[in-house]
Amino acid sequence: MGSRPACELKKFKKSVSRARLRKRNPEDEVSWVWGWGAGGELLVGAQHPPIFPCGCSSPRAPMESAPMLTDDWPGYSLDLFTYPQHYYEDLDYVLIPHGIIVDRTECLAKGIMQDIGDNNIVVLCVLKGGYKFCADLVEHIKTLIRNSERSISVKVDFVRLKSYHNDQSTQDMQIIGGDDLSKLTGKDIIGTGRTMKALLNNIDKYKPKMIKVASLLVKRTSQPDGYRPDYYGFEIPNLFVVGYALDYNEHFRDLNHICVINDNGKGKYEV
Amino acid sequence: MGSRPACELKKFKKSVSRARLRKRNPEDEVSWVWGWGAGGELLVGAQHPPIFPCGCSSPRAPMESAPMLTDDWPGYSLDLFTYPQHYYEDLDYVLIPHGIIVDRTECLAKGIMQDIGDNNIVVLCVLKGGYKFCADLVEHIKTLIRNSERSISVKVDFVRLKSYHNDQSTQDMQIIGGDDLSKLTGKDIIGTGRTMKALLNNIDKYKPKMIKVASLLVKRTSQPDGYRPDYYGFEIPNLFVVGYALDYNEHFRDLNHICVINDNGKGKYEV
Amino acid sequence: MGSRPACELKKFKKSVSRARLRKRNPEDEVSWVWGWGAGGELLVGAQHPPIFPCGCSSPRAPMESAPMLTDDWPGYSLDLFTYPQHYYEDLDYVLIPHGIIVDRTECLAKGIMQDIGDNNIVVLCVLKGGYKFCADLVEHIKTLIRNSERSISVKVDFVRLKSYHNDQSTQDMQIIGGDDLSKLTGKDIIGTGRTMKALLNNIDKYKPKMIKVASLLVKRTSQPDGYRPDYYGFEIPNLFVVGYALDYNEHFRDLNHICVINDNGKGKYEV
Amino acid sequence: MGSRPACELKKFKKSVSRARLRKRNPEDEVSWVWGWGAGGELLVGAQHPPIFPCGCSSPRAPMESAPMLTDDWPGYSLDLFTYPQHYYEDLDYVLIPHGIIVDRTECLAKGIMQDIGDNNIVVLCVLKGGYKFCADLVEHIKTLIRNSERSISVKVDFVRLKSYHNDQSTQDMQIIGGDDLSKLTGKDIIGTGRTMKALLNNIDKYKPKMIKVASLLVKRTSQPDGYRPDYYGFEIPNLFVVGYALDYNEHFRDLNHICVINDNGKGKYEV
Repeated sequence: MGSRPACELKKFKKSVSRARLRKRNPEDEVSWVWGWGAGGELLVGAQHPPIFPCGCSSPRAPMESAPMLTDDWPGYSLDLFTYPQHYYEDLDYVLIPHGIIVDRTECLAKGIMQDIGDNNIVVLCVLKGGYKFCADLVEHIKTLIRNSERSISVKVDFVRLKSYHNDQSTQDMQIIGGDDLSKLTGKDIIGTGRTMKALLNNIDKYKPKMIKVASLLVKRTSQPDGYRPDYYGFEIPNLFVVGYALDYNEHFRDLNHICVINDNGKGKYEV
Repeated sequence: MGSRPACELKKFKKSVSRARLRKRNPEDEVSWVWGWGAGGELLVGAQHPPIFPCGCSSPRAPMESAPMLTDDWPGYSLDLFTYPQHYYEDLDYVLIPHGIIVDRTECLAKGIMQDIGDNNIVVLCVLKGGYKFCADLVEHIKTLIRNSERSISVKVDFVRLKSYHNDQSTQDMQIIGGDDLSKLTGKDIIGTGRTMKALLNNIDKYKPKMIKVASLLVKRTSQPDGYRPDYYGFEIPNLFVVGYALDYNEHFRDLNHICVINDNGKGKYEV
Repeated sequence: MGSRPACELKKFKKSVSRARLRKRNPEDEVSWVWGWGAGGELLVGAQHPPIFPCGCSSPRAPMESAPMLTDDWPGYSLDLFTYPQHYYEDLDYVLIPHGIIVDRTECLAKGIMQDIGDNNIVVLCVLKGGYKFCADLVEHIKTLIRNSERSISVKVDFVRLKSYHNDQSTQDMQIIGGDDLSKLTGKDIIGTGRTMKALLNNIDKYKPKMIKVASLLVKRTSQPDGYRPDYYGFEIPNLFVVGYALDYNEHFRDLNHICVINDNGKGKYEV
Repeated sequence: MGSRPACELKKFKKSVSRARLRKRNPEDEVSWVWGWGAGGELLVGAQHPPIFPCGCSSPRAPMESAPMLTDDWPGYSLDLFTYPQHYYEDLDYVLIPHGIIVDRTECLAKGIMQDIGDNNIVVLCVLKGGYKFCADLVEHIKTLIRNSERSISVKVDFVRLKSYHNDQSTQDMQIIGGDDLSKLTGKDIIGTGRTMKALLNNIDKYKPKMIKVASLLVKRTSQPDGYRPDYYGFEIPNLFVVGYALDYNEHFRDLNHICVINDNGKGKYEV
């Protein structure tokens, strides 16, 4: 493992700087929007209520309410919606139905487009858990662009982080990504927001004009962390959620809603 | 006004029976599904909890939970979603975001298709409040049909009932509909479910094989009524809601979410 | 029949002018956008190529190409798409797949929103054939509005015209619509664009600030007519088409694509 | 480079076999569906007309027409649709509008679900060009599953192949994928279908019960190749197409329609 990370990192750097060199026009500034997936792994201390705006309304009034689901949020019965039969006994309730994710993502896209100015966008999608959120967010952004008079290009790239084993964060973290998917192997960088910080540190070196992180979910935990995404869909209680590409040992990615797994489901799909 | 209703009713009957005569095949049975719009005017007494299934899951287990939003349902902040700017100060909160309506309607369509057997369907959409729900429900049903091996035709017709004046039910009720939109004028038929009963009585005369009523919303009120739709999206508290084609004096139909109007909105759009 | 039309017309006028009186603000100008359905009945002479822009691009270059399907347009095989099984033997080919209608409607909505300025919109949907086009067009317009900073309200109303009997235009025409669906009975107003002219004449009396007609389809015929919608999706050859709410004796409304009916289908559903 | 490929391949094998071992139930068979992206790089000799069914209709009649766009297929004017402004001068015409891709993908999903039996599905998405097609195909499959009574799970994984440099195939090929995205470096495997064959050979070793390849596009070329996907959207002329995640040096991925690039566009975005 010794020398590989460095070599891989160099490749990654090269690919990123090549991407920048490709630009034919010096004014053609590139902003990075990190679509940090549905990302259940991002933890934000409850004692740090979000102070940045996450809505999409125009700022005619200060936003009083964070996009927060309270700890006693009732959720929805599974019976209200369609979902794959094989998860029938594995889920407790629906925390966020699929359609609300659609509505909320439209709102986030509007906010991003208001903030992005005339900069071009490079989206880095964090696989696998983020592919649905990222794909849907990019679609909304594309819809806004092609229905406007603005000339903003959107490029998409993919990186990969190691996801949960069972329902605990592991120590072994891999970042795989960039233009030629070089492999960045690291240790001790996962956990409560550290993952994102490590990723951002890697990106920062290439001096992008702007970096924004979008995550569908932010979890409230007792561990304050300091890291917060620039855009997020919902702040949720510290629950283990699956669906909308969020998995439990690769299961539940094909569930459209974000649901709370029950003990039966945890046992059934344990590795 | 005297003789017109009778004459119009006859026309309506004729058009309906003509529709039945048109069938080239005696086995070609026609079922009627009434897409009774988003229909805030349908009232169901709280002491009559629904006893019929309204979900779309297969009946592997008895449904324990009705599709009910409790009286203390918190709803969602308007800031979470996009909505037309001109309603910015007129709304209290989002009771049902648009995307959940989409999810729930998919589920109702699945249930309808499980119950309908091999019967063809005639959908009667109740204008204006029901046109969004009806259009979306029909789309879901069409998707199910064309992705299956079943051969079920769907016809669509439109009827019209007088909607609210301000936020009170009026006494003057008109039913306009059927194949040539004959006009049925009636009195004293509106109110707590009486509208629907009157409509059903009119339809019953033509002996359809099956009549099903679908309504997106059912309101809990203190007046028990006895009438209940066969399929409904949500049982909601006794609130005045607008959006998703439900109006307040013709306003708010262009709002995508179902929201609770505030006093400012009521005053602003009062007639 | 004698005195009724006049009386009904008066009611219609009253309802329209009441609608105008309701406006609380004199600056609150109302534009009328007529969503003239999928309207196969609108005929435009082939010798009158459209000279008005129908695209949605910004006018950086003169549009060279009308949205025209040429007479030798090959269409698509039915096998490429899903469609209801019961129409399996009744259709020749797919002239316009459903998805292109979606794409084109998005483009028309963009064009309408560029032209509409700050005026509020009243959409009159012509039932039944136009309900799909109208519903989808309004959805696109609503999406544009709620994702912009513009404050434009959209109201929706419905009118009804008598549709084809078999595949010939009939002489008996009814216009039913306006705020209380008063019935306008007329004679000799149907045919090659005369329907639309009659409707427009009725609307003109109420001096709306702007009237725009949108039709998904315009047919090329040998009878030049003089009437042309302001926005249209496609100019098509003089074919009898069904689907996307366009019917043949009430059949085919549940077909998602716009298709050319074959002789078998014509015979099967003849009245 | 020497020993790495072998080591990486071993990792990949291990991850794949681990995936198989994870199955808790021996009957729980896994099928592989390769969503081979929009993949312009797949070439099929014109002299080998497809002999397998690619439609989604039930086989009541032999399919007479392949999903083929002929060499003189006229395409659509760009003016008909919305698209990002910055590509205004770079495109010749629209070969396949976005909406038709949606319609066609629904049809492919139906066909896949008819063939898949009761097997579970592992989808391998080939990045980057295939991410839109794969994401949309999986959504259609998920919709079919959750609206049926069938119990079929869908897992998603991602692999990556090196894409075009300018508009020529390169010799240097990388396959990156599998559960831990091990890197498979190979030479001389790209080109006219060889890419896919190499991938399939790698997968074959793990004895999946069934392998199916789905590609949105198949190009007609003078080089017969022998390889054909099991499902494909359209057979197209040998044109250089972009859009719907297909790129030209990373540009045009944000274009919703599949379009033919013009010389201006080729020059502008040349590396």
